Amino acid sequence: MHRNRFLTDILSTLFDRRNASLNPDDTRDIFALCHALMSEEGEVSGQKLAAGILNRYCALSDEGRVAFFQMLNTDLDVDAAALAPLAADYANAPTTALFKRLSRAAEPKRQELLRRLNQPPGATAELVAMRTDLLRLTKDNTELERTDHDFVHLLRSWFNRGFLVLKQINWDTPARILDKIVAYEAVHQINDWDDLRRRLYPPDRRCFAFFHPAMPDEPLIFVEVALTEDVPGSIDSVLSDKRDPLAAEYARVAVFYSISNCQKGLAGISFGNLLIKQVVAELAMEFPQLDHFVTLSPIPGLIKWLGSQTDGAAHGAVAAAALDGSATAEDTRAMAARYLLSAKRADGLPVDPVARFHLGNGAEIHDIHADADSSDSGRAQSGGAMVNYLYDLSRTERNHEDFALNGAVAASKLVTALAATSFISRPKELSS
Amino acid sequence: MHRNRFLTDILSTLFDRRNASLNPDDTRDIFALCHALMSEEGEVSGQKLAAGILNRYCALSDEGRVAFFQMLNTDLDVDAAALAPLAADYANAPTTALFKRLSRAAEPKRQELLRRLNQPPGATAELVAMRTDLLRLTKDNTELERTDHDFVHLLRSWFNRGFLVLKQINWDTPARILDKIVAYEAVHQINDWDDLRRRLYPPDRRCFAFFHPAMPDEPLIFVEVALTEDVPGSIDSVLSDKRDPLAAEYARVAVFYSISNCQKGLAGISFGNLLIKQVVAELAMEFPQLDHFVTLSPIPGLIKWLGSQTDGAAHGAVAAAALDGSATAEDTRAMAARYLLSAKRADGLPVDPVARFHLGNGAEIHDIHADADSSDSGRAQSGGAMVNYLYDLSRTERNHEDFALNGAVAASKLVTALAATSFISRPKELSS
Amino acid sequence: MHRNRFLTDILSTLFDRRNASLNPDDTRDIFALCHALMSEEGEVSGQKLAAGILNRYCALSDEGRVAFFQMLNTDLDVDAAALAPLAADYANAPTTALFKRLSRAAEPKRQELLRRLNQPPGATAELVAMRTDLLRLTKDNTELERTDHDFVHLLRSWFNRGFLVLKQINWDTPARILDKIVAYEAVHQINDWDDLRRRLYPPDRRCFAFFHPAMPDEPLIFVEVALTEDVPGSIDSVLSDKRDPLAAEYARVAVFYSISNCQKGLAGISFGNLLIKQVVAELAMEFPQLDHFVTLSPIPGLIKWLGSQTDGAAHGAVAAAALDGSATAEDTRAMAARYLLSAKRADGLPVDPVARFHLGNGAEIHDIHADADSSDSGRAQSGGAMVNYLYDLSRTERNHEDFALNGAVAASKLVTALAATSFISRPKELSS
Amino acid sequence: MHRNRFLTDILSTLFDRRNASLNPDDTRDIFALCHALMSEEGEVSGQKLAAGILNRYCALSDEGRVAFFQMLNTDLDVDAAALAPLAADYANAPTTALFKRLSRAAEPKRQELLRRLNQPPGATAELVAMRTDLLRLTKDNTELERTDHDFVHLLRSWFNRGFLVLKQINWDTPARILDKIVAYEAVHQINDWDDLRRRLYPPDRRCFAFFHPAMPDEPLIFVEVALTEDVPGSIDSVLSDKRDPLAAEYARVAVFYSISNCQKGLAGISFGNLLIKQVVAELAMEFPQLDHFVTLSPIPGLIKWLGSQTDGAAHGAVAAAALDGSATAEDTRAMAARYLLSAKRADGLPVDPVARFHLGNGAEIHDIHADADSSDSGRAQSGGAMVNYLYDLSRTERNHEDFALNGAVAASKLVTALAATSFISRPKELSS
Repeated sequence: MHRNRFLTDILSTLFDRRNASLNPDDTRDIFALCHALMSEEGEVSGQKLAAGILNRYCALSDEGRVAFFQMLNTDLDVDAAALAPLAADYANAPTTALFKRLSRAAEPKRQELLRRLNQPPGATAELVAMRTDLLRLTKDNTELERTDHDFVHLLRSWFNRGFLVLKQINWDTPARILDKIVAYEAVHQINDWDDLRRRLYPPDRRCFAFFHPAMPDEPLIFVEVALTEDVPGSIDSVLSDKRDPLAAEYARVAVFYSISNCQKGLAGISFGNLLIKQVVAELAMEFPQLDHFVTLSPIPGLIKWLGSQTDGAAHGAVAAAALDGSATAEDTRAMAARYLLSAKRADGLPVDPVARFHLGNGAEIHDIHADADSSDSGRAQSGGAMVNYLYDLSRTERNHEDFALNGAVAASKLVTALAATSFISRPKELSS
Repeated sequence: MHRNRFLTDILSTLFDRRNASLNPDDTRDIFALCHALMSEEGEVSGQKLAAGILNRYCALSDEGRVAFFQMLNTDLDVDAAALAPLAADYANAPTTALFKRLSRAAEPKRQELLRRLNQPPGATAELVAMRTDLLRLTKDNTELERTDHDFVHLLRSWFNRGFLVLKQINWDTPARILDKIVAYEAVHQINDWDDLRRRLYPPDRRCFAFFHPAMPDEPLIFVEVALTEDVPGSIDSVLSDKRDPLAAEYARVAVFYSISNCQKGLAGISFGNLLIKQVVAELAMEFPQLDHFVTLSPIPGLIKWLGSQTDGAAHGAVAAAALDGSATAEDTRAMAARYLLSAKRADGLPVDPVARFHLGNGAEIHDIHADADSSDSGRAQSGGAMVNYLYDLSRTERNHEDFALNGAVAASKLVTALAATSFISRPKELSS
Repeated sequence: MHRNRFLTDILSTLFDRRNASLNPDDTRDIFALCHALMSEEGEVSGQKLAAGILNRYCALSDEGRVAFFQMLNTDLDVDAAALAPLAADYANAPTTALFKRLSRAAEPKRQELLRRLNQPPGATAELVAMRTDLLRLTKDNTELERTDHDFVHLLRSWFNRGFLVLKQINWDTPARILDKIVAYEAVHQINDWDDLRRRLYPPDRRCFAFFHPAMPDEPLIFVEVALTEDVPGSIDSVLSDKRDPLAAEYARVAVFYSISNCQKGLAGISFGNLLIKQVVAELAMEFPQLDHFVTLSPIPGLIKWLGSQTDGAAHGAVAAAALDGSATAEDTRAMAARYLLSAKRADGLPVDPVARFHLGNGAEIHDIHADADSSDSGRAQSGGAMVNYLYDLSRTERNHEDFALNGAVAASKLVTALAATSFISRPKELSS
Repeated sequence: MHRNRFLTDILSTLFDRRNASLNPDDTRDIFALCHALMSEEGEVSGQKLAAGILNRYCALSDEGRVAFFQMLNTDLDVDAAALAPLAADYANAPTTALFKRLSRAAEPKRQELLRRLNQPPGATAELVAMRTDLLRLTKDNTELERTDHDFVHLLRSWFNRGFLVLKQINWDTPARILDKIVAYEAVHQINDWDDLRRRLYPPDRRCFAFFHPAMPDEPLIFVEVALTEDVPGSIDSVLSDKRDPLAAEYARVAVFYSISNCQKGLAGISFGNLLIKQVVAELAMEFPQLDHFVTLSPIPGLIKWLGSQTDGAAHGAVAAAALDGSATAEDTRAMAARYLLSAKRADGLPVDPVARFHLGNGAEIHDIHADADSSDSGRAQSGGAMVNYLYDLSRTERNHEDFALNGAVAASKLVTALAATSFISRPKELSS
């Protein structure tokens, strides 16, 4: 019997080789282990087999990894030829027995492989890292998108909101996690330990992150919050090392000034909307006197859009002035308001990606500031302009629906008025 | 536009009714909420919608719940009519675009509903409770097995080994958890607080449980362990309130004397094999001097089988004697050994369910004891006989494979010899 | 040199004997170890020596322990003969050098011994247990009161408020601690696990305890609290297993219905006043709507006092009626009010010990209830009457001072009026 | 009655002034509060009074603080005039009653004040900070040494070994604590976050600290440990940012390369001996293969001593060569060995303070290295030489006794031989 002692044999063979140096291009072992893990024996010895596969995967070169993913993509694909008649049969007679056969056939086998891989301690983080590789390697192997689709499907199920844990990040957080915060901050770089302390230690600063219980050392996403007396008009003032901290009980405004996704391997699985709303709820409970929850956000597409605005004498001239930095603050704000309110993609949604995110969450454009971000990237993206998006939880559902259904952009009267600024007489003044 | 403000409207309506008494047979609200949760809006307001659905579900009567499950079963079933041509197309041309359409069509929509329901705090436990209902209601509505199949599929993915947490249960465990241990003990009932203390407090007792991070107050499965000098031959001595505890460092044997599954809603998702092996590994690390890891297990089918053994003069007579309690301890052990080694089902696996579990895990039959369980259930099941299964991790894979492939039952020489006992001359003695 | 290698020698000797059975009356070892611990070497090897002494102490019989304490009492007493001239010299010329010599001479050497004993893990609990022995043995050896005085002095310093930790006891508390709560409850006995659950699990029940970091498994004192809508008039209703729990946010009153000291060895070191006031502060913060903090307390001396009230025709008759249970509820309350307000000891403080405690803390007598405690002890002490003491933190200092300076008993108008009840016409009614 | 309502009055007065700016030289309030705290009322309202005193103390100028300490020193001194006759009486008749009066009189009242101050949350840390002030102010007010003597007496009792908690400091430690480690490192400065990570994160690095439960954010003392294959001869190699970490299970040697006291206010209360020995015990348990526990210590007095070595032609010449850096490594080692073994103070103990500490703990001089510390301070103190002290717990008691009784310095044969190096023929070589 050819299957006899397959598992025992393969495990003992692998054990013999354990201390030998692994050939990073040799995928025979890992294919054999995957075969064993998918067999019935996988039920009993799955944890050990899965650990073996994950170890071997780590030792593979990029060529080996592509081969591994190709195997998933092809050998462990859905068996469509078998599925078609089953589906037809079930459409005729939806019995339980047929349903079970159909279910089994309808799912690509690689999904079961990935579930069985997720057994040893630390496996979830290794599968997230594996998807990071996959995303990179898919660029030159686009057919692997099918496998990536299944990765996303499973990761979305495993990183379901019900399993996420919100934790506060502060000066009592272990250094191990803080190292990650420094590394993953994607909006306003954390320069050193003192910079980090300025964002976490003072009484008017907060930071919250989502974690998954199976990856306790890895934040998934985090948001940095400043508690202030007024809606701030500049990131420079928020991050200044000169400022005096405010006693938290005097704060009226919570400012979400930086939100960073941490795991490349979870790209496409969205946590931001959930995080912001839960943090709003947490802060509202801890500090009932807070009456505004706003972001202080970049406007990444503004400069590019200004460059394209050549039509309309006055408008075009102001755009040019904004571009070369000679526009007044008011004109810059007006151009930014126009951009955010009216610059749309073919699908009717805003050109600006940050606007799409917050408006899609149901936030509204609250205010716009010139000279708000003097960093290099701030200058390059938006000439230093920034925007506050307002989260009013009593309106986010309505805003979200209007946005999703009609592409309607919610904005304060102030911003709407800014966008309607008439530039007719301005150019003269500018030229005078 | 009929979809206009659908979500806002439904949420405000629901809010108005929140304090009204819910009609336990009225499923209109819950259907509307499910519809909203499955729509695009579900992405943004999913947590709130899911909480509303779970609240309404709780208020439903059994009739309402059947209607809810029927809706899942029928309205949110796989669309086989659409799936069949897609599968045929993909079989011809496996493109990514087709794959995505196929994937979407191939999964019953109720799976996505269940994933979206699993967002609010505590939702996982509520879904497990929902499945407990479903299992009960499926008895009279067998078509719901299809929906149950999808529940199992998702729960198996969420209760993946990688997400489980092993915790020791001891006298430092919160009372909240201990209450559950008392309630869920399924093998040897815990009579009162003193009985519980005898199983958890002494230095030669251990208890381990698997937990899921999303259900921190609910053990999934637990095993009770006695550390002893010798392999014990009786549960009565293990549970005695008279015994002197042993200093753990003198123990040579770890006895798994009770293993209980806790969650009816997770029926069909197996944790026992993993738990036993991880506990063996934990104990072996903490107490390197331990040289035997055995169970002390019931033999639930023995009495029934003895009643069926009428053939073969000597054998039949001994069976009859074992049945009426007049057999010697040695004869009882011999009959139990025959039963465990040779009584098989049509599929070639042992008749005895406990034997199937441990042998399937790769354990082997180590010893058999008469007069080992004087409880009512022990007498009724096996005439008081019990069995030790031995877990030798260096042999479990091999044993498991031999068992799975050939139905081979691993047993010690002693037990093999017991089963081979010749009864030819015995009946005389018995009749004398 | 006779001191040469004293420590090394004694340690090696002790090591040799470690496995030999200790003679429970032989104090030579322990005396030698104490001598070594008090020597200069004690600085370096103190932890080991102290552990040896504590082990030996545990093995001693009562005779051995008395001998040990006598050694402390006599050999390690203050050297008064040396102290007298030092004190005289210092009175003349208070120099630092003299002060240091005086300080050294003024402290009984046993205090230093006890401090040095308090070094190994768990030593603090062992010293508390040692004092429990001492208190018992002092009864027949009254001269040991000197040593006890030093024990109290040190324990009071070590169990300083600054070192105590307030912890909530609830259904998440480890069983190890809950066992202690059951054992130490001194007012209303906890009958079994269900009774304990009724006091800790419902949302309208709280329990708080002080712990010392060096004795983490041992509560020092705890108080049980009921959150209620009204000031309760009966402990029976508070402890009933029939009652419906109240959602905590609807409570208006916090009732301290049981307060128990746990450690006999800490007798004379008072924690009750601190505990009550801190719990009042904690509850006021968690539930701002609470407007009354009262006890529901026994009146232990009432029956005895009633028996002594024979003077005054009406008063005496009512007292007799209260004693034999034939008095009306109102008359019983009136007699109890008289007792609490006017029955005083020679030092001007109330006869009733519970009254002394709460009034000394600055509480005031708020209300009195007949038929409030139907337990045997309740009947025997007070004919079932109970009293509410009110803690109003804005008045406790003033009340305390009036009580401490003038013996003034603070009471509500209602209780003052009760005490002034005229019984002139009553006896007739009673006799009719 | 003049005492009437003293406490109520003072508290209400203080309350009125609370928001007024405190005069940092006005000690009337604090004196009045101390008076109240020492009165009987202090029993009931002590926590509030103590908090008031500690707040006022913080607001005092140095002049105010000196006045406060003078009050403690004089007004709350021991009453020697009353004590002398009591001592004489007790010497004649040691009764319990006399003993209690004597005990009360024999203790300076300021001790009771300090105990009562130690009641509010955080008070212990404030008293430690108060003593830091006292030590500083005593330099110009030497009579305050009496008060300092009592501070030490109480702090030694409160910071008893039995109350200390050993904690590992690693990369899971909160940033709040790590900030303190950086600030308190006294031997080899921690330059930045990367430097700290190099000492805590790698698998062959350990750090342990003692904490007191009442000051959970404040380490008392900590030691940094390197796990190595061999006894290291240079701190530069230990701290190098180029080195490859060692898997801890391959380490044979634990090197204590830095030990720092953290609390100036606890000067004179020794934790180092206890910390080293407990860390030796912890590491020996975790890594049974470790066979040497050594320090890598500075030799702070070497250069100074070399400068004084002018006698003896050869010896003096080598000393001079060592001083100007022209000596061979062997000669430098030999001179350092002579210094450590033979340079003694008048009391017979070594001149070198680090040597006194480790030899007093029972360690022995194991090896000496030249060119081991290239830092500025290392060059200045010892010309770069360092020493290993060896902790062999089976010999520390004996070594300690020999050292304490006879001033005997334990040293390895190698070091003894080094010290006996004859320099007779060397100078020639040096001059050649």
